[in-house]
Amino acid sequence: MGAEPGGYIRQMETLIGNEGLSNQFELVGAGISGNKVTDLYLRLERDVLSKQPDIVVIYVGINDVWHKRLAGTGTDYVKYTEFYDAIVKKLQAAGAKVVVCTPSVIGERKDNSNEQDGELNMYSNWLRQYAKDKQLPCVDLRTEFQNYLIANNPANAEKGLLTTDRVHLNAAGNQFVAKAMWKTVKTVQ
Amino acid sequence: MGAEPGGYIRQMETLIGNEGLSNQFELVGAGISGNKVTDLYLRLERDVLSKQPDIVVIYVGINDVWHKRLAGTGTDYVKYTEFYDAIVKKLQAAGAKVVVCTPSVIGERKDNSNEQDGELNMYSNWLRQYAKDKQLPCVDLRTEFQNYLIANNPANAEKGLLTTDRVHLNAAGNQFVAKAMWKTVKTVQ
Amino acid sequence: MGAEPGGYIRQMETLIGNEGLSNQFELVGAGISGNKVTDLYLRLERDVLSKQPDIVVIYVGINDVWHKRLAGTGTDYVKYTEFYDAIVKKLQAAGAKVVVCTPSVIGERKDNSNEQDGELNMYSNWLRQYAKDKQLPCVDLRTEFQNYLIANNPANAEKGLLTTDRVHLNAAGNQFVAKAMWKTVKTVQ
Amino acid sequence: MGAEPGGYIRQMETLIGNEGLSNQFELVGAGISGNKVTDLYLRLERDVLSKQPDIVVIYVGINDVWHKRLAGTGTDYVKYTEFYDAIVKKLQAAGAKVVVCTPSVIGERKDNSNEQDGELNMYSNWLRQYAKDKQLPCVDLRTEFQNYLIANNPANAEKGLLTTDRVHLNAAGNQFVAKAMWKTVKTVQ
Repeated sequence: MGAEPGGYIRQMETLIGNEGLSNQFELVGAGISGNKVTDLYLRLERDVLSKQPDIVVIYVGINDVWHKRLAGTGTDYVKYTEFYDAIVKKLQAAGAKVVVCTPSVIGERKDNSNEQDGELNMYSNWLRQYAKDKQLPCVDLRTEFQNYLIANNPANAEKGLLTTDRVHLNAAGNQFVAKAMWKTVKTVQ
Repeated sequence: MGAEPGGYIRQMETLIGNEGLSNQFELVGAGISGNKVTDLYLRLERDVLSKQPDIVVIYVGINDVWHKRLAGTGTDYVKYTEFYDAIVKKLQAAGAKVVVCTPSVIGERKDNSNEQDGELNMYSNWLRQYAKDKQLPCVDLRTEFQNYLIANNPANAEKGLLTTDRVHLNAAGNQFVAKAMWKTVKTVQ
Repeated sequence: MGAEPGGYIRQMETLIGNEGLSNQFELVGAGISGNKVTDLYLRLERDVLSKQPDIVVIYVGINDVWHKRLAGTGTDYVKYTEFYDAIVKKLQAAGAKVVVCTPSVIGERKDNSNEQDGELNMYSNWLRQYAKDKQLPCVDLRTEFQNYLIANNPANAEKGLLTTDRVHLNAAGNQFVAKAMWKTVKTVQ
Repeated sequence: MGAEPGGYIRQMETLIGNEGLSNQFELVGAGISGNKVTDLYLRLERDVLSKQPDIVVIYVGINDVWHKRLAGTGTDYVKYTEFYDAIVKKLQAAGAKVVVCTPSVIGERKDNSNEQDGELNMYSNWLRQYAKDKQLPCVDLRTEFQNYLIANNPANAEKGLLTTDRVHLNAAGNQFVAKAMWKTVKTVQ
């Protein structure tokens, strides 16, 4: 959905255009709805490496956690870290610069009382540490979303601020992600 | 386990004795390992009302959340609140004073990064509000555990401080719960 | 849904009328969507015993199994049997005759290759044995559905024969259940 | 465990030796406890292709189903088929002959009343059809186990005949798998 009209990839293009940098960046969406880290690994050559990207922003984790509850088919924490690391190594071996993202939200309550906040925090802790250890830039969407919701969700609503349904981004959410990603991507040398 | 030697019920008896109040309190454990709120409702007459208690401390919720992940047989949030309220009404109709407890922990990490912290927070939020609305005393074990762990768990270990295995209380944990419960129970008029 | 127009309770009334027995039977639906055996126990007095029924047909089990996968909140096998038995005892103590039903299907494939066939068979085995031990009539919907599907589902479709969506009955399914229930209910002395 | 002393790989070696064919076969175990189809794909080059095998017996599926219930981290049916097919294609591209196996059991009850029989049947149906379509030999362990249990499990026990604990093979189970695999492997040209 990020690559569709109004999606955060399309909104990043607008931000890039506003800064007069359109001729320096070509944004290509490779996300597929419902994908987990294992799926990214399966189609890495075909859908990403084949395009010889300079920079790859990896944004995966929501479904890895969410599907544990939704269908019994989420990704074990340890397996998540193994597949993630395998993807980063393949990307780097191909000469791409990698940008890490933490998973934003499954539910917008601001006090860690959304059903799967524990796991999102757990996976995000690993991603932050991994990015630090590997000296990779990290778009910390989880922290940015949480800070935004603490400031802007007085009723502690579980959806409707940055998502339509607890998970999928609404217009404001796409704008929010676009800004956060661009802020980091523009610093990649 | 709370009613076994070293368990929090036995440790409360010691605290009561220390204050010279042993002749005013008789503590009876009615908990059964693995029970959820539905189980308490099923055996309320037989195991609790039959003893004509003056005060009933309800401490249930860990298994209701934990078994969602462990066995696919946890308790829906809405059903939890319905059964809980039905238990309280039956107890009050029988003349017992009710003390509410929030569920402590499934994992001792201090930063809400234990797998099921989100749901424990969610169920605890409801219990706190319910106690307030019904003017019932509340032993807020979840908040007390979290505050203790923030102060005493610098390595962010997931077990070993107040539990043996993320869930079951060790000696310090039993002591901690005994103190917290007694502090509230002694105020019940 | 069984009590709505076209539902199996309404269709049983037609079958009863066809046999000229309408003045001997009054059918009252007490089912609520999404209920499990624990929910039936919770509202037994209010919704069933209060009506002083002569005969009670208990049809529960689909959600107890289905919700394990759907939401992590199904009913443990042993707890299912405990609550079921508690319900039967309360009904019999109130003078009602009890009719047992096995759960029909979650998916209509005929070769035990629907996701939760194993558990439906497991719970049904218990119900059949329980009915036998307690000398209660049993509407063995599971066996009747399976036999029907073996005979009528050559493409091994997972829905569309007796259900709309693997679980909820279509018109033919409601007719099928009505016939099966009536066949047994009419024999209750 | 299949590669340890007494495991089915070691027992196949004995069968091969009994037929005087030890100089024609070298058996190498590459299984890792708890692995699912995604894990096999992740380490295919390192642990299998690097050894330039002539024949590869793929036996995966138990954990893909079991972990849905055990940890919420099983493998979606469609993803199972995608990763499986990707593995077969890589093996064939490397010149290896592939042997398919259906997953045996999670529980030894003979009447499809083990908790996850539905899913094991579902995944096995796909594997049988896939092997047929691709003209690959198939060790149909599921059918062989089921036939054995129908003949030899009169008490409908859930463990103890071919497994120790519903899943892991006992001595008889290892012998049973060894015979079934060898019967097929010896026919591979």
